[in-house]
Amino acid sequence: MALIVQKFGGSSVANAERVRNVASRVVETMQAGNQVVVVVSAQGDTTDDLIEKANEINTNASKREMDMLLAAGEEISIALLAMAIEKIGASVISLTGWQAGFKTNAVPGNARIDRIDTERVQSELDKKNIVIVAGFQGLDKYDNITTLGRGGSDTSAVALAAALGADRCEIYTDVDGVYTADPRICPNAKKLDEITYDEMLELASLGANVLHNRSVEMAKKYNVRLEVKSSFEKVPGTIVKEVTNVEKMLIRGVTRDNDVARIAIIGLEDTPGIAFKVFSALAKYGINVDMILQSVGRNGTKDIAFTVTKECLQKTLEVLENLKDTLTYEEVTHRDDLSKVSIVGAGMTNNPGVAAKMFEALFDADINIHMISTSEIKVSTLINVANAEKAVRVIHDKFNI
Amino acid sequence: MALIVQKFGGSSVANAERVRNVASRVVETMQAGNQVVVVVSAQGDTTDDLIEKANEINTNASKREMDMLLAAGEEISIALLAMAIEKIGASVISLTGWQAGFKTNAVPGNARIDRIDTERVQSELDKKNIVIVAGFQGLDKYDNITTLGRGGSDTSAVALAAALGADRCEIYTDVDGVYTADPRICPNAKKLDEITYDEMLELASLGANVLHNRSVEMAKKYNVRLEVKSSFEKVPGTIVKEVTNVEKMLIRGVTRDNDVARIAIIGLEDTPGIAFKVFSALAKYGINVDMILQSVGRNGTKDIAFTVTKECLQKTLEVLENLKDTLTYEEVTHRDDLSKVSIVGAGMTNNPGVAAKMFEALFDADINIHMISTSEIKVSTLINVANAEKAVRVIHDKFNI
Repeated sequence: MALIVQKFGGSSVANAERVRNVASRVVETMQAGNQVVVVVSAQGDTTDDLIEKANEINTNASKREMDMLLAAGEEISIALLAMAIEKIGASVISLTGWQAGFKTNAVPGNARIDRIDTERVQSELDKKNIVIVAGFQGLDKYDNITTLGRGGSDTSAVALAAALGADRCEIYTDVDGVYTADPRICPNAKKLDEITYDEMLELASLGANVLHNRSVEMAKKYNVRLEVKSSFEKVPGTIVKEVTNVEKMLIRGVTRDNDVARIAIIGLEDTPGIAFKVFSALAKYGINVDMILQSVGRNGTKDIAFTVTKECLQKTLEVLENLKDTLTYEEVTHRDDLSKVSIVGAGMTNNPGVAAKMFEALFDADINIHMISTSEIKVSTLINVANAEKAVRVIHDKFNI
Repeated sequence: MALIVQKFGGSSVANAERVRNVASRVVETMQAGNQVVVVVSAQGDTTDDLIEKANEINTNASKREMDMLLAAGEEISIALLAMAIEKIGASVISLTGWQAGFKTNAVPGNARIDRIDTERVQSELDKKNIVIVAGFQGLDKYDNITTLGRGGSDTSAVALAAALGADRCEIYTDVDGVYTADPRICPNAKKLDEITYDEMLELASLGANVLHNRSVEMAKKYNVRLEVKSSFEKVPGTIVKEVTNVEKMLIRGVTRDNDVARIAIIGLEDTPGIAFKVFSALAKYGINVDMILQSVGRNGTKDIAFTVTKECLQKTLEVLENLKDTLTYEEVTHRDDLSKVSIVGAGMTNNPGVAAKMFEALFDADINIHMISTSEIKVSTLINVANAEKAVRVIHDKFNI
């Protein structure tokens, strides 16, 4: 008997019919002789509807109250899914994040899971129940409801799989696996059967929109076998694990991420600890920084440029404004009409010239590069958003994936 | 500095504008130098919408999952009200039922409050916060979310006022007080300035639709001073307390309640313990019985007739069906086209002939009485629902209230 954690996103439970569809997949898994824990997001537009309700009243509501509000979304979806499973005749119980033992830090709106006390989930499994758990939410040490921020439900699922020692964690989504590029942009993109955590991590953080990087990081850390599958079609998905068997491909995929804003701090006084001051201040406000470039400026100053998600742009500018007393700089500029286009692949470490080939593809297509960032297994470029789809296509073609 | 518990029902917070209106009343109360705890119901149609969502999926969902679903309704309203208060600039925190320490028994859908652990609410008050609490909900000893059933939010408010030792509990509703009859039926009905718990209890349980009897019972038990007020208009309401100063009125009000179903068990074997068997079985399923009549039948048998709310009719018939093994009876009949019309008033105990006068009014109007039940301060009659409004008017006129 295997213990399987299945995660269904908001679009998979968006209406009664889809909830019924998920219910029957869950019950099938159970009837195949498995113990099943299901992590669910809020239904389709629920979260957006709740945010709109909040904005009608207060566009600057505290994150603490926003979390209270949003947590209701998953409470609704877990109850409805449990009811659909009851209807089929299987034993089931739904649990909120706190009932399922999710303990987080006290950062409302973007909490991290500190630990999961699995007693309740385990005891419900022992009672032969299918256990439905609200994703995206937990409880801090002051007994306040918190939410996990973007990709929260994936993270909930993987963390729960790790805590329970589950045999695998299946992430159901509206695509049927991980592709070498977005099939809507690249018609000749291919589905990958397997991919390593590291590759997936780069793809996820680069906007492949299938799995959030937090969940992949956690899967890697606790060696949770992940499967990305389609909620709608019963076809094999993509397996994410430590080592893959597929033949070495130079690059594994091309991605683009339009949710990016670039901030540049120009003419910073060149003293030690500058970068620390900037980025620790941003971290204090829960702002995740992605690409960072530091360059020597003019007259003994330096420039620091970095990217954040668009949502964090305003807050980032405020934080920098407040740093004016402790930091000397000329000006702060920002742009949010950019896209990050990247190539990912474990193969590239041993193949010099990969980055050059990518830049050549962009040059051939007359696409200007604003910023470059590289890691062991990826190369990212920041370009104008208007060129993003074309960039993905020309790079995908250039590497002949 | 007084500690005031204010309760706002679903219609009082039905949309953004009303939520803002409630927020400013709450902040005014605080700024007048009081500590304020606010108990809120789910917004307007939220509960109905959630029930509809459930019915699309499973019309026979477990009450446990129904409670999980419905509890989301108040989570939304407490968060929104807290945001509206934040907007005004006051310190505020919202708490779910379980966060506010509501511990209930394990009867989903109709739970009773066992106790309230007020530490959290008290500590938030000590931090100068306005505390917004989700009505209608609590947590059972197995850590399952429960709801309190009909009138639950009123009960939450009164119980919390009692547990906190509040100076008073204000119930805001869409009427501006307690009337001698429903003003929509009797245009010459009068608003009462004061009323005793016992009178209110009879009025509440008889369908006056202002306060639920559970909340009034609890107010009487813990001597909580209640005030029924309008959410929309700033006019004095009705005060509910132990002894009132107003001159003795023969009867205090006329009410009708259309949510009534009558069940009759005909030809019961006349052995001791029959009534116990019937009503303990119903109690086990959480079915509240209202009027009870036991009469001698034919051939050494007896008949028991009683009323329940319409919602409980089907369940009641099932329970009686299951009693067939332990109970001998000829048949069970039922009707749900009835209305309970009643007069209430502490004055009637010392005034013989009050009941007769009521029956005369009904006789004059050619209204047939199906069942009669009396207590120290009320007389109830069961009549055809089609006659209910007329009955209220003729009785109100007859007593010249």
